[in-house]
Amino acid sequence: MGAKPAIAESVARSALVEAMRAGDSVRGLTSPNPPVGAVILNAEGEIVGVGATQPPGSAHAEIMALRAAGERARGGTAVVTLEPCNHTGRTGPCSQALIAAGIAAVDYLHADPNPVATGGAAALAAAGLKVRQVSAPDAAGVSDALIPWLLSVREQRPHVTLKFAQTLDGFTAAIDGTSQWITGTQARQWVHADRARRDAIIIGTGTAFADDPSLTARYPDGSLSEHQPRRVVIGRRDLTAAGDVARNLRRLGYEQYPSVEEALVGLYAEGARDVLVEGGAGLASAFLEADLVDAISAYVAPVLLGAGRGVLDRALVQTLALAPRFHRVETIALGEDVLIEYAR
Amino acid sequence: MGAKPAIAESVARSALVEAMRAGDSVRGLTSPNPPVGAVILNAEGEIVGVGATQPPGSAHAEIMALRAAGERARGGTAVVTLEPCNHTGRTGPCSQALIAAGIAAVDYLHADPNPVATGGAAALAAAGLKVRQVSAPDAAGVSDALIPWLLSVREQRPHVTLKFAQTLDGFTAAIDGTSQWITGTQARQWVHADRARRDAIIIGTGTAFADDPSLTARYPDGSLSEHQPRRVVIGRRDLTAAGDVARNLRRLGYEQYPSVEEALVGLYAEGARDVLVEGGAGLASAFLEADLVDAISAYVAPVLLGAGRGVLDRALVQTLALAPRFHRVETIALGEDVLIEYAR
Ligand SMILES: NC(=O)c1ccc[n+]([C@@H]2O[C@H](COP(=O)([O-])OP(=O)(O)OC[C@H]3O[C@@H](n4cnc5c(N)ncnc54)[C@H](OP(=O)(O)O)[C@@H]3O)[C@@H](O)[C@H]2O)c1
Ligand SMILES: NC(=O)c1ccc[n+]([C@@H]2O[C@H](COP(=O)([O-])OP(=O)(O)OC[C@H]3O[C@@H](n4cnc5c(N)ncnc54)[C@H](OP(=O)(O)O)[C@@H]3O)[C@@H](O)[C@H]2O)c1
Repeated sequence: MGAKPAIAESVARSALVEAMRAGDSVRGLTSPNPPVGAVILNAEGEIVGVGATQPPGSAHAEIMALRAAGERARGGTAVVTLEPCNHTGRTGPCSQALIAAGIAAVDYLHADPNPVATGGAAALAAAGLKVRQVSAPDAAGVSDALIPWLLSVREQRPHVTLKFAQTLDGFTAAIDGTSQWITGTQARQWVHADRARRDAIIIGTGTAFADDPSLTARYPDGSLSEHQPRRVVIGRRDLTAAGDVARNLRRLGYEQYPSVEEALVGLYAEGARDVLVEGGAGLASAFLEADLVDAISAYVAPVLLGAGRGVLDRALVQTLALAPRFHRVETIALGEDVLIEYAR
Repeated sequence: MGAKPAIAESVARSALVEAMRAGDSVRGLTSPNPPVGAVILNAEGEIVGVGATQPPGSAHAEIMALRAAGERARGGTAVVTLEPCNHTGRTGPCSQALIAAGIAAVDYLHADPNPVATGGAAALAAAGLKVRQVSAPDAAGVSDALIPWLLSVREQRPHVTLKFAQTLDGFTAAIDGTSQWITGTQARQWVHADRARRDAIIIGTGTAFADDPSLTARYPDGSLSEHQPRRVVIGRRDLTAAGDVARNLRRLGYEQYPSVEEALVGLYAEGARDVLVEGGAGLASAFLEADLVDAISAYVAPVLLGAGRGVLDRALVQTLALAPRFHRVETIALGEDVLIEYAR
């Protein structure tokens, strides 16, 4: 039990950043569970264990960090990106494990929104631990990996990021249809790394027919990333009825849904929490019209076309005041291109 | 005369950044002369004078910096963004002034491209000074104010920056014509500060008729900046023939040219070296088609429209490979907006 160890605020803060980084490193691998990160500090405030959520059915982040810390956890502090769970699921409640390990204090970033798992903070406090909810430091240099998962719990559908690569003046292809390559190598590699952190990549039948994409996450050398997102096509047209089209998807396997809403229901039911919509313009417009876009990743290339195929294929509104506005979250220079990330 | 003083490289570098900053602070005020900055270090390497080009007919940067330094210049180093001039223009050659002040060494950033003024470095070296051309430090945190002027000397026309404010998907107005405000307060204030650093602001007759712009540079409180760029309209339509249009320009005064080429010839002849083209889409397309765009300032707002008026009003090319590509120079977050600056 014992008194709160004298951990300086700066130590707690950098432990949180470390925990956020650990959680971020398992994005794409944990769904339907959240990509949580945990750090155990010993009584002196030194990091003695770092852990992150393992694939579904395996250990939660706290358990991994406790395992790494062993006896050194006694009298120490756990810093976790999500309130420790309190339910005996496939893995037993983390709150009990923290108590059993002799942890004296717990800092957590997000409260658990899951009504089944919630109550962890209260259980820990009842056991005499010093428990507090903390906020993410400004400019932590690491993104909050739980944002998509938290939204998915709230909305009971996957978090949706709309991605497009465009010329500065908003085109995804020239008049003659050419679109390779609008963006440069660095941006394209970034897209692949991003895919490896998602549960699913979604395209419309139009893109499946036109581009024969493989929708895989690849390393710069062309080899496949360990984690491959699910490949999803939306639309009613049958990719297998026509002749020599969508060969890559047919070879690699894909799921198809007739509508945006059915896709999100189906993907959520099967565990997807964080999906990337990669176009084309028809599908992107449909997601925006349905108000189902939570984030945008816009890759802007230093090219001007003047005319061509737009990012969207129809007017969302007639007047500026009614146009959807997003919040700028991050701006990342990728060689000659810029990735601008927005959230709702 | 004398031996080169032992000025550390780091001292020379920060003096150069200081000189660049001084030059940058007089952009828009010096044309047709270049906005040069100069720093005088005493023999110990301490800054004893900073100067920048004064309005045409008054002192050059070196003279201003020498005046500030006085006797402390003796045995010191001059760090200048442009090779000191060697001709007796309205102000007498700067190279002679440096020699007379007892300066022992000169660092300069750019060689003087002007055949009349050139020879300064040679004259200084002949007088026994230690002269070298240096390069701008990476990430100096200050832009190179001489870039437009250097191009204008080379091309014998003003340096042209194309500016537009657009939605993320490349529109400058919605279908119903609404365009106020696409970008936020910070971006609009930045535009005004930028105008105050240019020799002229150029628009097409279409924008003059449609928007009744005043094309002034204003502070956030609405008051006018000290320096006002020239107001220029391109096109054949007569703004005064029609009734109640372009009232602000008619009140404030403006110059009109019938074509892009005539505008650049006329503006250069009358001393403009650095101009900003603010649209609209017709004029922007014309400048790009004539290959007369040296830089782009794109203000990208977090808004999607799907359709509306584009940044350009016609196709520049039919296929991606032929599209004009620029180099990304800087990406500046302005509240929810992003300013992306490109150069050729
Ligand atoms: N630069 C980029 O970032 C990028 C990315 C991807 C694609 N692209 C380009 O975009 C082009 C394809 O765009 P596109 O607009 O023709 O095709 P698309 O958006 O990929 O697919 C359109 C199809 O999606 C389905 N769809 C759209 N909205 C729907 C909704 N609300 N419910 C159900 N289904 C819906 C419909 O399929 P059915 O008709 O089958 O029902 C529709 O025909 C390709 O040329 C590709 O190269 C560019
Ligand atoms: N968001 C932004 O950044 C922004 C900025 C400015 C304007 N705008 C909008 O753009 C709209 C106006 O655009 P616009 O395309 O109609 O008008 P514009 O580009 O301002 O003016 C077009 C006119 O410019 C002249 N012109 C164009 N190219 C020329 C060339 N090569 N040689 C000589 N003259 C040439 C022609 O004038 P004559 O016909 O008289 O010969 C032409 O009709 C307005 O609604 C305004 O609100 C938006």
